[in-house]
Amino acid sequence: MTNHLLVLQSDFGLVDGSVAAMVGVALQEDPTLKIHNLTHEITPYNIFEASYRLFQTVEYWPEGTTFISVVDPGVGSKRKSVVALTENNQYIVTPDNGTLTYIKTHVGIKAIREISEVKNRRQNTEYSYTFHGRDVYAYTGAKLASGHITFEEVGPELTVDAVLELPVVETVIGDNFVCGAVDILDVRFGSLWTSIKREDFYTLEPEFGDRFEVTISNNDMLVYQNQVTYGKSFADVRIGQPILYINSLYRVGLAINQGSFAKAYNVGVGSNWHIEIKKLGG
Amino acid sequence: MTNHLLVLQSDFGLVDGSVAAMVGVALQEDPTLKIHNLTHEITPYNIFEASYRLFQTVEYWPEGTTFISVVDPGVGSKRKSVVALTENNQYIVTPDNGTLTYIKTHVGIKAIREISEVKNRRQNTEYSYTFHGRDVYAYTGAKLASGHITFEEVGPELTVDAVLELPVVETVIGDNFVCGAVDILDVRFGSLWTSIKREDFYTLEPEFGDRFEVTISNNDMLVYQNQVTYGKSFADVRIGQPILYINSLYRVGLAINQGSFAKAYNVGVGSNWHIEIKKLGG
Amino acid sequence: MTNHLLVLQSDFGLVDGSVAAMVGVALQEDPTLKIHNLTHEITPYNIFEASYRLFQTVEYWPEGTTFISVVDPGVGSKRKSVVALTENNQYIVTPDNGTLTYIKTHVGIKAIREISEVKNRRQNTEYSYTFHGRDVYAYTGAKLASGHITFEEVGPELTVDAVLELPVVETVIGDNFVCGAVDILDVRFGSLWTSIKREDFYTLEPEFGDRFEVTISNNDMLVYQNQVTYGKSFADVRIGQPILYINSLYRVGLAINQGSFAKAYNVGVGSNWHIEIKKLGG
Repeated sequence: MTNHLLVLQSDFGLVDGSVAAMVGVALQEDPTLKIHNLTHEITPYNIFEASYRLFQTVEYWPEGTTFISVVDPGVGSKRKSVVALTENNQYIVTPDNGTLTYIKTHVGIKAIREISEVKNRRQNTEYSYTFHGRDVYAYTGAKLASGHITFEEVGPELTVDAVLELPVVETVIGDNFVCGAVDILDVRFGSLWTSIKREDFYTLEPEFGDRFEVTISNNDMLVYQNQVTYGKSFADVRIGQPILYINSLYRVGLAINQGSFAKAYNVGVGSNWHIEIKKLGG
Repeated sequence: MTNHLLVLQSDFGLVDGSVAAMVGVALQEDPTLKIHNLTHEITPYNIFEASYRLFQTVEYWPEGTTFISVVDPGVGSKRKSVVALTENNQYIVTPDNGTLTYIKTHVGIKAIREISEVKNRRQNTEYSYTFHGRDVYAYTGAKLASGHITFEEVGPELTVDAVLELPVVETVIGDNFVCGAVDILDVRFGSLWTSIKREDFYTLEPEFGDRFEVTISNNDMLVYQNQVTYGKSFADVRIGQPILYINSLYRVGLAINQGSFAKAYNVGVGSNWHIEIKKLGG
Repeated sequence: MTNHLLVLQSDFGLVDGSVAAMVGVALQEDPTLKIHNLTHEITPYNIFEASYRLFQTVEYWPEGTTFISVVDPGVGSKRKSVVALTENNQYIVTPDNGTLTYIKTHVGIKAIREISEVKNRRQNTEYSYTFHGRDVYAYTGAKLASGHITFEEVGPELTVDAVLELPVVETVIGDNFVCGAVDILDVRFGSLWTSIKREDFYTLEPEFGDRFEVTISNNDMLVYQNQVTYGKSFADVRIGQPILYINSLYRVGLAINQGSFAKAYNVGVGSNWHIEIKKLGG
């Protein structure tokens, strides 16, 4: 049921040899595996970001793909190492530390198993306590992706309900406004990606060219308040102008055409960064 | 005629999930494709750089390779999405926004077709207006590279003459000097790569060890003027010394042995950055 | 005896087209090669780092893998271009400039041959003196990895003893202390990786939870002196606390749980950065 595709994500960066060691371990298990990177530039220890990047990409990959995500601030603690089988028949190998939050909610998890470190840990690494990415996750992911073990042979089944979830901001829909959080950035371009889904925004019956009052606050501190045009794509406004749009994940985005909204107004991300979008006039 | 090799370039960076989504889309079309990266670190919106990096690399890849280049500040505007067939029988999938400038001049384009978004756009993405890299370019590139569509099936043919070109600085050859522009950097090492071709520089009849007066100006402002030795390679001058050399694309380069010329003298790139190389004595 | 796996390392970065040109050259030689990156973010000209990153990763790759490492400040000088056959039956293609230091000492070199630039240099590159990564190393590495040439056909044999080695700090073991150097960083997390091997540290009979006095100096200048707990993994101390541990290469490491030791105390790497670990009480 696996397809020999293995996709790696971590907060290790590509500057040293960590990722190459993981890739090598996987190819020692099966040299015919096809290995790709999601990203290794997750902000160190940022589990939320890891969760979001998985959500952002898994649906574009074939059924049967195995993902390994190692953002693991608790390496060496009691946190569990697991493999999730998603509703789309993909596997995700990861510490159970919140990394599965978005997948659980937006994709769905069919079943989850704890990695048995007795059977599925690289031999002669029992005195290495700090690099489970190489010794446990890459090793188990490769065994699974290559078909050398079945999902059942990963280890004992756990209950899907118990999968650890990070808190997520719920969208609030009012008469003439919607409220949510700034989840994450389209990093290179500094666009804000909010938690507000297209269908929730559509309750405001927006038309391209309409203007909305956008308010961003960090906890209780006002950071940005201005009128912004709703458009199809960046080119709908002049260079340097802000634009409200539906992003490639069908959520509300906020950008500056050929500029960086995040840098222009020092906007950060996370559940403390609130955004309200209010219909103007009537 | 394609060879299943797909090479991706963009200004998306590797920090978020954009590139991984493109790779996934391509592998959904055909899991046997071999996907490589040219670079994803093109300066955001810098079409000239995208054009140069293609020129710098395509000739080193096999015939039949498909390149996708997505530096697309005009996404959502009327700019066309095209596939070019080069004189070397490679394909380049890109917005027609100047990205093909160097390929058109230095490699040659045999034929060009506009991507039909009716047939060659990923299904169910008709409400996504901001990520043609995933929905149009990766999807079409993968169909072409895998042989699932022919070049003719990309869409209607356009005239090669109409391919959009960015302005390029012409080399001026005088009695005892040549003039051109600083096109781009050998980024990591800070060496300047000029627009002056080896054969134009050779009109000065240089010999290794000769010294030349090099003048660099940004518009009318003088930035650098000094005598520099012409050598074969960096090791021909002492560490910390400047050197004039023929670079790996057979154009005149200017470097500091184990230093950064660009940082040392704050030299930038582009058509406003003029360089003159003058023969000394005689 | 080669396995079609080719692994590239350099100080070229991934921002321009250098690495893509090397990959293309290799695939022109044999499109079935499987090409991976170790890292291309070696600090420019830092041969020691290149040597360490090879040491850190080669053992996790299959027998028969071919590595190319191009950190080559002496390109164009008389330094030799070589291929080493290691005791683990892997090949390393590199300038003989110290890059093989760690492999020679810790893995072992069976045989070494100089690359014959007459036979094993890309055609029509005889006027390119600055990019041996593309014209010599990628080309020869690909010929070897694909089985198009044998190891013997690389060029004339050299003596292993003559392989150039960088100076390496020896560990000093005292009655109640061990001394070594800060070799390198676990870059993303700012942990120090020392030259002190697990077995040398074990002469102090450490137990998890023991505290040691750690002294770091840069030449004769004291940089850090404090008591640090010895633990299994980062989670054994509180967030923000320092920890002494055995790293994934079985050497002594020094980290701050979810912080950066290197940034916190401005610690650098190299043979001038001494570290002493002293047993307390007893």
